[in-house]
Amino acid sequence: MTTTTPPITLDDVRSAAERLQGVAHRTPVLRSRTLDALVGAEVHLKCENFQRVGAFKFRGAYNAASRLTPAQLSRGIVAYSSGNHAQAVALAARELGTSAVIVMPEDAPPSKRAATEGYGAEIVTYDRYTGDRAAVAEALAAERGLTVVPPYEHPHVMAGQGTAALELVEEAGELGLLLAPVGGGGLIAGSATAVKGLRPATRVIGVEPEAGDDTKRSLEAGRRVSIPVPRTIADGQALPTPGELTFSVNRRLLDGIVLVGDDEIREAMRFAFERLKIVLEPSGATPLAALLTGRAAPLPGRVGVILSGGNVDAARFARLCGADD
Amino acid sequence: MTTTTPPITLDDVRSAAERLQGVAHRTPVLRSRTLDALVGAEVHLKCENFQRVGAFKFRGAYNAASRLTPAQLSRGIVAYSSGNHAQAVALAARELGTSAVIVMPEDAPPSKRAATEGYGAEIVTYDRYTGDRAAVAEALAAERGLTVVPPYEHPHVMAGQGTAALELVEEAGELGLLLAPVGGGGLIAGSATAVKGLRPATRVIGVEPEAGDDTKRSLEAGRRVSIPVPRTIADGQALPTPGELTFSVNRRLLDGIVLVGDDEIREAMRFAFERLKIVLEPSGATPLAALLTGRAAPLPGRVGVILSGGNVDAARFARLCGADD
Repeated sequence: MTTTTPPITLDDVRSAAERLQGVAHRTPVLRSRTLDALVGAEVHLKCENFQRVGAFKFRGAYNAASRLTPAQLSRGIVAYSSGNHAQAVALAARELGTSAVIVMPEDAPPSKRAATEGYGAEIVTYDRYTGDRAAVAEALAAERGLTVVPPYEHPHVMAGQGTAALELVEEAGELGLLLAPVGGGGLIAGSATAVKGLRPATRVIGVEPEAGDDTKRSLEAGRRVSIPVPRTIADGQALPTPGELTFSVNRRLLDGIVLVGDDEIREAMRFAFERLKIVLEPSGATPLAALLTGRAAPLPGRVGVILSGGNVDAARFARLCGADD
Repeated sequence: MTTTTPPITLDDVRSAAERLQGVAHRTPVLRSRTLDALVGAEVHLKCENFQRVGAFKFRGAYNAASRLTPAQLSRGIVAYSSGNHAQAVALAARELGTSAVIVMPEDAPPSKRAATEGYGAEIVTYDRYTGDRAAVAEALAAERGLTVVPPYEHPHVMAGQGTAALELVEEAGELGLLLAPVGGGGLIAGSATAVKGLRPATRVIGVEPEAGDDTKRSLEAGRRVSIPVPRTIADGQALPTPGELTFSVNRRLLDGIVLVGDDEIREAMRFAFERLKIVLEPSGATPLAALLTGRAAPLPGRVGVILSGGNVDAARFARLCGADD
């Protein structure tokens, strides 16, 4: 039996928090009497939908990019994403006075493209049916001397994402349970490192969409397994396999994974809208769905929840949640 | 020329704030870099959509009800409303250990009725085409010894609503301009009393829907005028004439009224959803619409805005704001 050094520690998360001070928002922690009464626990909601670019992704992207050397920063950074990571890297580059190239599929939604360009990034497109976005990014990196900022598979990215949980505990106090969504696994890896570093007895449970249960299966198998690319409304969690680095953290620290269905996610988005008066994208609503369905029960007295993002436009929200019922 | 004592003063608002401590939420004041950049000012958004019952109305209802005598409270309170005031009075009654009767039209939306009953109130219905809701409430009051809690036409109600602005200034500091919606006029009367009491130079501008410009016309005429019942999506502001008491305050204190159209209100609701990640009902979005359309220009460096409520269900939001465009 061997023990290996974990890729990140609580100190790495604390160091990221220092970097992010005054750059990332210290997002509010909301409470709801209605929610508390419904689930029978004191629930503290860390609202990363209010984060810059509308999602926690900025924390990791900025922490990673800010640690590049002046020479690296002078050449610029590159990322591949058509989601929140694209805007996060674009904004991090602007804040650090460097440039960003974002590799996106040709058919990415115009609004996502415009938002990313709005932060000053250059967009390079590829054909999602014939191209390989990682290869496109690597080729650009080699050709132009750019540094790739990955969406989760990096210690500085994981540590940056973990600052959301660190702030939550600083504000809410000790928690019996932390719930967070699991996509590539960076948010929950950083968050579990933070909360278990502060208080090992806190349970940490990840939430995946039913169709995207790659981390649940991997934890059960004791190794990373791949599933077909998930079809789910939770687009931030539609990944076929956990990251290698994130899984090495999560297999040590997570107490379990619960699954929620797309209809349950829709219901949680509607609950957030109508009762909490906040906007959550599908992935951002999965931990709330886990609470509302009782899937995370039994609950301790004090529960922390990371609502990871709010990037859903009004038209998509209307399609997902607007039907009278 | 005569001077009369104003119906409320800054001290009344401060006294209301003491009553509300620990009962009403001290709602967050949000900032948005995007909004600041768009309008060219530092904008402080007082989020009364996060207030209990989802709107500022609870502040006034509770302040007024809490000042009733024990004998009055033992008999109960009554109000007529199918909107936010209904839930506000129902919750105030529950908090004070008394009972509430709410007079609503027979065809009030089932969700509003259920929400009000959820706070323990008794609902009495009337026919909106043949009945007179004020008469129904007065008859109930006489018959059962109930006390009417009006939605705006009362000093304790106005003072209670004004605590929203008092908190805003306490948190944001001095403001050059305060924008707030005008319906019956209680929120802005209390708010103007608070902010001008603290700093007379602060301008206070009310926002009405174009179709519901009764306070604007009344200020221009120097007396209360009536208009046909307005047809507007801003249902909280669909009133034909200002209150007598509220108008007596507003004619002294307001620096003007600006009007916004229903399409501009929709656009502001969509902006709040997509950029601020918060839910606003149409009336709650009117001051934001005034900002986004430039109707409130020229702006001073620091602007306060009261976002008065967020009670719109997902289906109605989808109908109002969900079209792709």
